[in-house]
Amino acid sequence: MALGEFGRIGRYFAPLAGPGGLGLTDDAALVGCEVGRRLVVTVDAMVAGVHFLPDDPPDLVARKLLRTNLSDLAAMGARPLHYLLASALPASLDDEWVGRFAAGLGEDQRIFGVDLLGGDSVATSGPATFSLTAIGDVAEGREIRRGGAMPGDIVWVSGTIGDAGLGLAVLKGEHPTLAAEHRKALAARFHLPEPRTTLGPRLVGLAHAMCDVSDGLLADLGHICEVSGVAATVEAAALPLSPAALAIGGPRLRVQAATAGDDYELLFAAPPEAEAEIRRVAGEVRVPVTAIGTISAGAGVRLIDAAGQEVAIDRAGYRHF
Amino acid sequence: MALGEFGRIGRYFAPLAGPGGLGLTDDAALVGCEVGRRLVVTVDAMVAGVHFLPDDPPDLVARKLLRTNLSDLAAMGARPLHYLLASALPASLDDEWVGRFAAGLGEDQRIFGVDLLGGDSVATSGPATFSLTAIGDVAEGREIRRGGAMPGDIVWVSGTIGDAGLGLAVLKGEHPTLAAEHRKALAARFHLPEPRTTLGPRLVGLAHAMCDVSDGLLADLGHICEVSGVAATVEAAALPLSPAALAIGGPRLRVQAATAGDDYELLFAAPPEAEAEIRRVAGEVRVPVTAIGTISAGAGVRLIDAAGQEVAIDRAGYRHF
Repeated sequence: MALGEFGRIGRYFAPLAGPGGLGLTDDAALVGCEVGRRLVVTVDAMVAGVHFLPDDPPDLVARKLLRTNLSDLAAMGARPLHYLLASALPASLDDEWVGRFAAGLGEDQRIFGVDLLGGDSVATSGPATFSLTAIGDVAEGREIRRGGAMPGDIVWVSGTIGDAGLGLAVLKGEHPTLAAEHRKALAARFHLPEPRTTLGPRLVGLAHAMCDVSDGLLADLGHICEVSGVAATVEAAALPLSPAALAIGGPRLRVQAATAGDDYELLFAAPPEAEAEIRRVAGEVRVPVTAIGTISAGAGVRLIDAAGQEVAIDRAGYRHF
Repeated sequence: MALGEFGRIGRYFAPLAGPGGLGLTDDAALVGCEVGRRLVVTVDAMVAGVHFLPDDPPDLVARKLLRTNLSDLAAMGARPLHYLLASALPASLDDEWVGRFAAGLGEDQRIFGVDLLGGDSVATSGPATFSLTAIGDVAEGREIRRGGAMPGDIVWVSGTIGDAGLGLAVLKGEHPTLAAEHRKALAARFHLPEPRTTLGPRLVGLAHAMCDVSDGLLADLGHICEVSGVAATVEAAALPLSPAALAIGGPRLRVQAATAGDDYELLFAAPPEAEAEIRRVAGEVRVPVTAIGTISAGAGVRLIDAAGQEVAIDRAGYRHF
């Protein structure tokens, strides 16, 4: 027999609730805030067929949804605390699917130290649609915004870029001759981004401006530049690429990596004198960081090759499949 | 030319953003919390064809979405402060539709004193789907939960009940001979609930338990009883009905009113000695309140007629159309 809405809440979601979630039996949840800190809040939505494939494993769908939001918190320098979930589910998704979805959330709750505060679940005639609201906190007045980049700053990015885009291509059947280990690594980057929740808060006081790479590195850097009123130059040769991406290779690889989305790496601008400390904290949290360019007066973002020539870009951002 | 996602944010939503929304240009928003108060958070989702009709006026859709969430805050005794919005929109909804939707939010922001903190907007192949996260606050340890009802408490409800359900029936063509003014009044109650944001916070320290009427009065009272570990008896003759509902009449009217949903009135249990103070604060905020029953030891909810006989209920809650 199907569990129904209250049955699903009781079996799958109540065990995920933290103390502020009040057992998911009330109209709303409670959130404390420590003196001297401010809460940071973000929301992201995902739709089957747009942001994930309808037959993707439900636990991975859930974890990606949570992780993309945790990445937004990290991009402000905030530490993650809680989340709320709204789901619109077609009748075709049964209790077992929902149970696996909730199990994915539970696994990531343990990894990232967050808990569920509440949610809503409704029926839809359309594709499964989720929105997740994530709550974190940051020391008051210390949040890292997009608007603080200054001429002379160095542009940094964490991890490697382009992998999620290549992972999606692999999942769609492209690059059939690529070694199985590389295919698996790229697909994993698409299914399960690694939000930089440990690095982000450590960059408070070091980075002038930060965001995460969701639309694509150049597009997201463009947002930083626009809000900060500055320009940026990125060296294509400096872009950090994974072994799997390098194995695919090709003349347009670095342009593709700079314009692919969904990497959820941290992209930040920091003054040159912060370099040593940035490398030190990144080493402590074991997240690689790479200096990829510079901020200057002006407007716009340029990608340049080893000879200093501007590389033509066919698209500035990322389009969903 | 269509505005695109960033154009829509800039034109329609950025003007709605409060200081914590950071101009909607960052990855997340900031929320302050006063010393001695705790934040209260809730989320509700709405789907076209399930919770509203696809050709409903977009400003009313937006306002109902916001108001149902503000009602959840009021039901905890919290005052409303902020909200975030996630939208999944089919291509058929153009900029004009989105503009009217945002205008509805703007109108209610002025009425209820809340502001927008952030959001996400994505594409969907299905019906328009929204989720709204509302944030309020309440004095620490003073929130009104569902679990505090005690034997001997009086059961109260604000406003009138059953109107939203009758309004939906009217919108679907039922009750064709009802006077136009009544039809209009009922439809308005369905389209535009009146969250009791002024009454809710005034019941802090007076009500032992509270929720809002969304599933239906008896079903929601059942939730209070279940969590509180008590029973409730409701007198059908005491249920507050509007002139429009009374004009429809019929032998099952009071049962229908007690089981219809979407009224978003406050339903609460309070000790008899609080009666005078409850009537006083309700008078101050000009929201009618009615004593409709009592809490006793035991379990379950009974509806009784004037002779004290239990009235048979065909359904305990509310089913969406």
